[in-house]
Amino acid sequence: MEAIRGRIASRALTTGDRLPSIRSFAATMGVSPSTVVEAYDRLAAEGMIRARRGSGFYVASAAPPPTLAEIGPKLDRAIDPLWVSRQSLDADAIVAKPGCGWLPADWMPNSAIRRAVRKLARANDGVLSDYGATRGHLTLRRLLARQFAGEGLEASPDQILLTGSGTQSIDLICRLLIRPGDTVVVDDPCYFNFQALLRAHQATMVGVPYTLTGPDMDRFGEVVATYRPRLYITNSALHNPTGATLSPQVAHRLLNVAAAHDVTIVEDEIFADFEPEPSPRLAALDGLSRVIRIGSYSKTLSASIRCGYIAARAGWIEALIDLQVATNFGGVSPAAAEVVFAALSDGSYRKHLEAVRRRLARARRDTAARLENLHISPWLMPRGGFYLWCSLPDGRDAATIARAALTEDLVLAPGDVFSVSQTASSFMRFNVSQMSDLRVFDVLERALAAAKE
Amino acid sequence: MEAIRGRIASRALTTGDRLPSIRSFAATMGVSPSTVVEAYDRLAAEGMIRARRGSGFYVASAAPPPTLAEIGPKLDRAIDPLWVSRQSLDADAIVAKPGCGWLPADWMPNSAIRRAVRKLARANDGVLSDYGATRGHLTLRRLLARQFAGEGLEASPDQILLTGSGTQSIDLICRLLIRPGDTVVVDDPCYFNFQALLRAHQATMVGVPYTLTGPDMDRFGEVVATYRPRLYITNSALHNPTGATLSPQVAHRLLNVAAAHDVTIVEDEIFADFEPEPSPRLAALDGLSRVIRIGSYSKTLSASIRCGYIAARAGWIEALIDLQVATNFGGVSPAAAEVVFAALSDGSYRKHLEAVRRRLARARRDTAARLENLHISPWLMPRGGFYLWCSLPDGRDAATIARAALTEDLVLAPGDVFSVSQTASSFMRFNVSQMSDLRVFDVLERALAAAKE
Repeated sequence: MEAIRGRIASRALTTGDRLPSIRSFAATMGVSPSTVVEAYDRLAAEGMIRARRGSGFYVASAAPPPTLAEIGPKLDRAIDPLWVSRQSLDADAIVAKPGCGWLPADWMPNSAIRRAVRKLARANDGVLSDYGATRGHLTLRRLLARQFAGEGLEASPDQILLTGSGTQSIDLICRLLIRPGDTVVVDDPCYFNFQALLRAHQATMVGVPYTLTGPDMDRFGEVVATYRPRLYITNSALHNPTGATLSPQVAHRLLNVAAAHDVTIVEDEIFADFEPEPSPRLAALDGLSRVIRIGSYSKTLSASIRCGYIAARAGWIEALIDLQVATNFGGVSPAAAEVVFAALSDGSYRKHLEAVRRRLARARRDTAARLENLHISPWLMPRGGFYLWCSLPDGRDAATIARAALTEDLVLAPGDVFSVSQTASSFMRFNVSQMSDLRVFDVLERALAAAKE
Repeated sequence: MEAIRGRIASRALTTGDRLPSIRSFAATMGVSPSTVVEAYDRLAAEGMIRARRGSGFYVASAAPPPTLAEIGPKLDRAIDPLWVSRQSLDADAIVAKPGCGWLPADWMPNSAIRRAVRKLARANDGVLSDYGATRGHLTLRRLLARQFAGEGLEASPDQILLTGSGTQSIDLICRLLIRPGDTVVVDDPCYFNFQALLRAHQATMVGVPYTLTGPDMDRFGEVVATYRPRLYITNSALHNPTGATLSPQVAHRLLNVAAAHDVTIVEDEIFADFEPEPSPRLAALDGLSRVIRIGSYSKTLSASIRCGYIAARAGWIEALIDLQVATNFGGVSPAAAEVVFAALSDGSYRKHLEAVRRRLARARRDTAARLENLHISPWLMPRGGFYLWCSLPDGRDAATIARAALTEDLVLAPGDVFSVSQTASSFMRFNVSQMSDLRVFDVLERALAAAKE
């Protein structure tokens, strides 16, 4: 391989030239013909040379020059609900990401995932190569059904559809239930990607202020009566971005108002496993009549080997399967579901979660104290999870701060990306798990000062 | 674990009962407390028992009874463009699937996939747990760019977006370029899932008859002038379902007509690697100006570990990334892309493809001969791939035959599911790789007889 690479580099062989025949090159190099075949095959796989059937190997065209667009933050992008996602997902390794929505890689249960991946390598051919059944991995769906039953939520495995991700779950539900121009209620603030997703569906969004115990129910009642929304999309357990938790009274009242106006509720469980103790769940109170439960393992197991789910009425699941086949020819990767199932059921998941919860409690406390030094104050101290939703000193503008921080390789999550009404300009969401490097606070201090000017 | 399972089965322990403490149960069983902890954790992971923090383990609610909806063909479903997909994906192992669109698991390069999966188990934490960059695996995109350059199609790796699947690629393009009510041109017949997908987007479909050398260009010109379509979606290389190949003249004329009426073309490359020799490609002629190239490895590497791609104008790629983040929070699984890249570049892929092409050539010949015995005739003998598009004797109705075959555990692909104009009722698509069990021909003969009555 090195010999051929050298000839191409020195231009002894150029685009379109035929490579030496396998037999003659084997003789030249003093190796067996099969060694040359393997080397040529590898070079072909790399794209450096090409095989023409029956006539040997040729030097391929030069590769297009690599570009720089992969690298570094894009400073000129408008700060919209996609800004934090785009900046965080494409951030270089040197960039710190207190604005992102996931744990650092070394907080994740990587040994369990590695064990599960090694087990996958021994799975049968079908698991490794077939599309899999439309609902996805039956054993994983049975596990979910048993977990739901433990909360008093009876759902048969057939009422559970596995998907590629939690986001894809909501996307499929939107495809089924809303049409362009339909109104959807979201919390204000809410997870920014709910907004990006609803924009992609051309839905009209109306926000309801989120309080310490859930959505403001007086306002929710008015909004529902006025706009006749089709859907309400929310996080249960630990609200994103505030970290607040639904109270039983709000949960009960919410379901009654939704029933009176025939609103369907999508309850996103994605942060549920970070809760210290279970809080009220709309799906459990409602019994999957008008509530659709969705969730995924991207925050607690792996965001690389993804698996989401939807639990809903049987009729809706049937229609969602059709949509998932039409738009993705199937749902979760059977291999991914196998890895997720193995990692969930090898007995280490509960201990991992307990350790992460302890570590997060410490990080929330330490980060809050360091933020208070900069006069940045949490709106509440959440019971769990990795978010702190904070007000900035003197009403300073979070977007200005985020832009300044980005020039110093720090991705932040400014308040208005979470706010449909654009009324959170002096709030910022911090991910405490991404703030152990104290440089973050130095950059933050300078960015705060820049925003004052 | 067995001891606790036994007590639950015998109802010595029932829902809500506290399990023996770890210490006392360890003493009872004569094992170490850590053994009991592990057993309890595994039972909890299975959902049989539940941990309450600080207060021990309890018997969980009984699981909902398993249902039968997972099993067996659903006979009453209408035969629409989703029919073949739903029947094939959920078919039990005993069901034969000449109607499906993939190779049997044992035809796939499973040893290469297993090697790649074992390699994945040793990847760094980030590959196993992070979302990954928005465009996906840079090295795989560079490999694709070099392969394209080999065809004379210059595309930078930034102009390539990795996706979860080929279908998802088209779905994203539809989200970007079409709105409900827009017209999209498809081939008649065409891959049935193009229709299911376009219905999900509420597009209006117009079909153009497919000839032995590509779409009927006179009709294409009329349709484009009359309906002002936004998109034309087609397969290159080996057309699905016919197996026909675009001629250079049709390709050239098609691009000129599309340019004259500002039609964007989506060219699906999914069967390209099954071609014996490369045929004309719209993307290469056009240079990604109005042609968008999409493809995936689901047919040639794995449909379980999926990875699709889109190659298009840089501006479109930027907008597609936003849509992919909004609707799926990222694209391809980094772990899946790592496996696909490893399997493509380990040097065995070319040899695997050559072997599959030889095996398919034999299967096409043998199957065509066996079908001719039943007076079922291929419309053409394709140059490659696994499909034979066949006319049935005496214009017999393919849907009737497919229904009859399904009662004998045989999934077929009746012609009208491919036809927007519903003019292929006496055609059937056969997948020759799924017909090595000669029972298929017995069932087919009986179903043909039933359709005559």
